[in-house]
Amino acid sequence: MIPFTLNILGSGSAVPTLHRNPSSQLLQYNGLYFLIDCAEGTQLQLKKMKVSAMRIGHILISHLHGDHYFGLIGLITSLHLIGRTAPLYIYGPPQLFDIISLQLDAAQTKLNYPLVFNGLDEGITVTLFEDENIQLQAFPLVHRIPTWGFLFTEKPGEHRIHKDFVARYSPAIETIRAIKAGADFKLDDGSVLPNHAITIAPHAPRSYAYCTDTAYSEVIVPIIKNVTVLYHEATFMHNRLQDAIKTYHSTGVQAAQIARMANAGTLLLGHYSSRYKNLEPLLQEAKAVFDNTMAADDGFVLEIK
Amino acid sequence: MIPFTLNILGSGSAVPTLHRNPSSQLLQYNGLYFLIDCAEGTQLQLKKMKVSAMRIGHILISHLHGDHYFGLIGLITSLHLIGRTAPLYIYGPPQLFDIISLQLDAAQTKLNYPLVFNGLDEGITVTLFEDENIQLQAFPLVHRIPTWGFLFTEKPGEHRIHKDFVARYSPAIETIRAIKAGADFKLDDGSVLPNHAITIAPHAPRSYAYCTDTAYSEVIVPIIKNVTVLYHEATFMHNRLQDAIKTYHSTGVQAAQIARMANAGTLLLGHYSSRYKNLEPLLQEAKAVFDNTMAADDGFVLEIK
Repeated sequence: MIPFTLNILGSGSAVPTLHRNPSSQLLQYNGLYFLIDCAEGTQLQLKKMKVSAMRIGHILISHLHGDHYFGLIGLITSLHLIGRTAPLYIYGPPQLFDIISLQLDAAQTKLNYPLVFNGLDEGITVTLFEDENIQLQAFPLVHRIPTWGFLFTEKPGEHRIHKDFVARYSPAIETIRAIKAGADFKLDDGSVLPNHAITIAPHAPRSYAYCTDTAYSEVIVPIIKNVTVLYHEATFMHNRLQDAIKTYHSTGVQAAQIARMANAGTLLLGHYSSRYKNLEPLLQEAKAVFDNTMAADDGFVLEIK
Repeated sequence: MIPFTLNILGSGSAVPTLHRNPSSQLLQYNGLYFLIDCAEGTQLQLKKMKVSAMRIGHILISHLHGDHYFGLIGLITSLHLIGRTAPLYIYGPPQLFDIISLQLDAAQTKLNYPLVFNGLDEGITVTLFEDENIQLQAFPLVHRIPTWGFLFTEKPGEHRIHKDFVARYSPAIETIRAIKAGADFKLDDGSVLPNHAITIAPHAPRSYAYCTDTAYSEVIVPIIKNVTVLYHEATFMHNRLQDAIKTYHSTGVQAAQIARMANAGTLLLGHYSSRYKNLEPLLQEAKAVFDNTMAADDGFVLEIK
């Protein structure tokens, strides 16, 4: 199974604290490194988790509140200083490009590597990246300023053919391709070996959705339907629902309601208000609605299976 | 003696590391808090040193290389989020205002407190702040982009009158003022009590100069002449003099040469390249030129006496 690993670099919100950094995650898939949001301090969080920033190929910025991107310009600059030459792909709100450019100009820094910026369009779901194994999409969330969620979806794998079948029938290349895609095998006598008898079915495609910052929004449910792991913000406990509504954030209970409606495999909570040092009450409240819930924290690593 | 304390929040250069943050210092004088430079991570360094960021009244930014200011927008935003209402005075290169404004606009954040921005003029020495006890000036350094040093100079204190003199002669208010300013006291019989006999002389005015980033530059010597504590960058050891020249930085030996020419009281080295984890060789090399040299490091606190 292709490695598909989530590293939580920051699970807090708003203001950095000594016990929790604001939003940042590293998603690794098959040797590709995607950085999702990049709060101040993300560079040091990467160092703490012994991840080389040089390996990051793509950076996704959900929106332009500082707790999601104030570490980006520093990371871009550091990669330049330590000698990066490979292109870096950045996806984010269009204004982000102006913010980066202005700061590079002020420093009279001309980057040693290509910075490829892709502005996100408001209000639509769009594919940002795709290869033979995985697809990455951005979709709109509901927040005080334009904000995007991100969905990584694995493509269905091929059927793997049993070795003894190959040894016995020596099928032609085009026959192998057909069987891998799901075809049955017709013998010379006209009888048929059904596909399931001669192959191992691929595992179910896995997926990961990143939904922060967002107010409670059922609009996203069809987009993230059946997602393997859903990261959903849980800024407040439910007794502060009015605060959540007022600030376009969610409670942990609301995150669990979304996970249940979307039939998610696992719900991962995060983006906690700094008032919650102990996450247990917030987690328990969400688990009462959606049992398979976990509370992310800085340094947390999750294999997506 | 009025408290005059320097807190080193970051003594590294270029890239943040787990053992050393880039440039930032807090200078406390008589209840005034001046933040000098504000690299990424400065907020957390303040928390580690148990300094309330709310108490900072003035922020000085030497130049627009990221290792001196990438933490500023986060600090400004955090102060807003935690409820600051008092004005915050910022002094820095004019473009800094555009950079801050663009990011506040992108977040649709309207600060709860007045941000008073003062752009520094290139090439001239200018007074930024002054009260009855201290004067703060900015002066040009020599670097790849416009860069300013900062000089804090205490004003000469008043003479303190001996209590037994006051008890014996009950001088009038205006006479007290004159004596504090240095006047002698004339007795009724025409004889004179010299000022030194009836007062305690004020301590010598103290001063602090911040000089980073800069190439070796003798031009600054007259400006910082007789400074009590000189913080001067020492990015390289002297075997990398050519690197220093090429990058408009200084070696520790050059910093010591400047300290000697300026007749500084103490030289404090900083802004080290991340290659120097152990500072001892760099320090010893500088001490050979100017004995009263210390190596700053993150968390270092110095009372300026």
